[in-house]
Amino acid sequence: MARRATRTVRVGDIAIGSGAPVSVQSMTKTHTADVDETLAQICELAELGCQITRCAVPNRAAVQSLRDIVAGSPLPVVADIHFDHRLALAALEAGAQGVRINPGNMKDRVGLRAFYRAASQRAGVKVRIGVNSGSIRGRKGLEVCEHEGDLAELMVSETLEYCRDAEEQGLHNIVISLKGSDVPSTIAAYRLAAGRCDYPFHLGITAAGPPAASIIKSAIGIGTLLAEGIGDTIRVSMTGSPHEEVRAGLAILEALELRQQRGVEIISCPTCARCEIDLCELVEEVERRLDGLPLKARVAVMGCVVNGPGEAAEADVAVAGGREFGYLFLDGRKLRKVPAAELADAVVAEVRRLQPREDRA
Amino acid sequence: MARRATRTVRVGDIAIGSGAPVSVQSMTKTHTADVDETLAQICELAELGCQITRCAVPNRAAVQSLRDIVAGSPLPVVADIHFDHRLALAALEAGAQGVRINPGNMKDRVGLRAFYRAASQRAGVKVRIGVNSGSIRGRKGLEVCEHEGDLAELMVSETLEYCRDAEEQGLHNIVISLKGSDVPSTIAAYRLAAGRCDYPFHLGITAAGPPAASIIKSAIGIGTLLAEGIGDTIRVSMTGSPHEEVRAGLAILEALELRQQRGVEIISCPTCARCEIDLCELVEEVERRLDGLPLKARVAVMGCVVNGPGEAAEADVAVAGGREFGYLFLDGRKLRKVPAAELADAVVAEVRRLQPREDRA
Repeated sequence: MARRATRTVRVGDIAIGSGAPVSVQSMTKTHTADVDETLAQICELAELGCQITRCAVPNRAAVQSLRDIVAGSPLPVVADIHFDHRLALAALEAGAQGVRINPGNMKDRVGLRAFYRAASQRAGVKVRIGVNSGSIRGRKGLEVCEHEGDLAELMVSETLEYCRDAEEQGLHNIVISLKGSDVPSTIAAYRLAAGRCDYPFHLGITAAGPPAASIIKSAIGIGTLLAEGIGDTIRVSMTGSPHEEVRAGLAILEALELRQQRGVEIISCPTCARCEIDLCELVEEVERRLDGLPLKARVAVMGCVVNGPGEAAEADVAVAGGREFGYLFLDGRKLRKVPAAELADAVVAEVRRLQPREDRA
Repeated sequence: MARRATRTVRVGDIAIGSGAPVSVQSMTKTHTADVDETLAQICELAELGCQITRCAVPNRAAVQSLRDIVAGSPLPVVADIHFDHRLALAALEAGAQGVRINPGNMKDRVGLRAFYRAASQRAGVKVRIGVNSGSIRGRKGLEVCEHEGDLAELMVSETLEYCRDAEEQGLHNIVISLKGSDVPSTIAAYRLAAGRCDYPFHLGITAAGPPAASIIKSAIGIGTLLAEGIGDTIRVSMTGSPHEEVRAGLAILEALELRQQRGVEIISCPTCARCEIDLCELVEEVERRLDGLPLKARVAVMGCVVNGPGEAAEADVAVAGGREFGYLFLDGRKLRKVPAAELADAVVAEVRRLQPREDRA
């Protein structure tokens, strides 16, 4: 799928835009004023594969810690700021590689422009102009938003007005976000904006809720847009740990093949009446024993011979279960018959024997 | 979003196609030969909201149980049959409201046509012609499938050839599926087929793997297509319980507003340094206490005053947390200040006071 063409914007050493891979970000949930706690969480997120972190900066105490956080962080740090442009200016002074604002809630319009000018003077600093449906509805009243199309149009036109304002002050390193708390309005807003500007897009569903609900809403909303070539950096937001946000974000990119699979991908059938073995148990065992293996490979664990051989052709190593015996496949070729009780051992051994191969899977 | 226009096909009392709501289906994972066990699982799935069930029919023992399963099932039953057209004919005799085949693995082509003719004589019976990428690759060899576009083209052209064969025998109640075990090839195949026929589509990602991986792959793959108006009935397949398949399928439709929310939808923010309360705990408590309430409503549980009031405008009941007090909102209007420790009680009480209202949320 072709990516929508955008300008490239830098946030520290990460490029955002169609000239760069789609990046994954999250947001710390510690008190930003607590440097140690916040840096510890950023390091954990970086370890998982997170590429950009955001920290809320609600007050002076938080902004005073920001310099140490930026200095110690392995990831570029974006300061999330509301209401007060002075906090945004102070975040630039502290060395933040990005600032996220919602111009609609900035109280001092003259001060906001001073911030845009200050940000435009710093290389490698981006400003995200992030509007969400709640902030639009909250200000304009419910009555104008009867249809998702109306809301999308409002969100996009308001955001692009803000961007013009920033551009007039010389700021061009702009990323925008248009988050709805429901999936259809979010998709509609980004689709609409895609044709009207060349700013890179930060994708997410805001206030998506607890993990189970958030993962489904985010995978659909972010995934649909990415599958249409729209989106340059993503954040899965959930009322839960930021670690899970990062894992879900990476999984979305991997599912769309926008990011190399890290480790072994297991494909497995849903089982049915044809299945004569305990496939769930076999998959769990294989998954557990291959977890963390630094090898890009696809492993198929199939319950029977209906789809097994076909899926085997798409996998590096595969097994198709039978009542007493299963068949082991390597690179799509049937290798040998294996007693059912030894299938897990056989699959794991074959995968471990694979040579790292860049073009695999 | 406009649905792709399709013919309408009936499977028992459920209509599939653009003239009907998108339906959710699953597949029993019991031995079909065991009538009691299979019927018990079908009843559980129906209770959760599943609308169509599929049962694998791999042998005579299974087909002999099918009559009793169909007679006792609250849902239309689709028999999943491979290799042997005589099992498909017997499934029709047993009263199955649908049969799913992959014509590519049927050994007797003359017998297959006899099955098409027999199926065409039965009102309310649909045949799903279901091809998956594994079965194509397995037969054609890997070398022709270097690009996802090639594979999609192969899957679609082969499937439409099968359909022509069936139509020549008088069968028109056809649903098709084109499942890939990866998301991009699945999306590509359905998008391609969408412009070439008016058959309703059964959507799914085959061999999607264990629940965590399957939910993300299925939400993206199924969700992207539905968000483009493509797809008429869906099945989330996972190496796990069919109950989870149904829950995930329903959640996908609800997220895209293709199905009325059942019960209370909770939206909640991801928390950040601005949050002064234990939001995860508050959300979990509210979710637990409102679970199963037969009321369509949207409840926003927000950590602070930045997005709280805006999200409140989109919710029936909302709360925005603060250090000692939070604010309670009803229909977007601030109702009152509530001590932090009493927020859960206050939200639950307000939601319980809501009248059932069809146009709510």
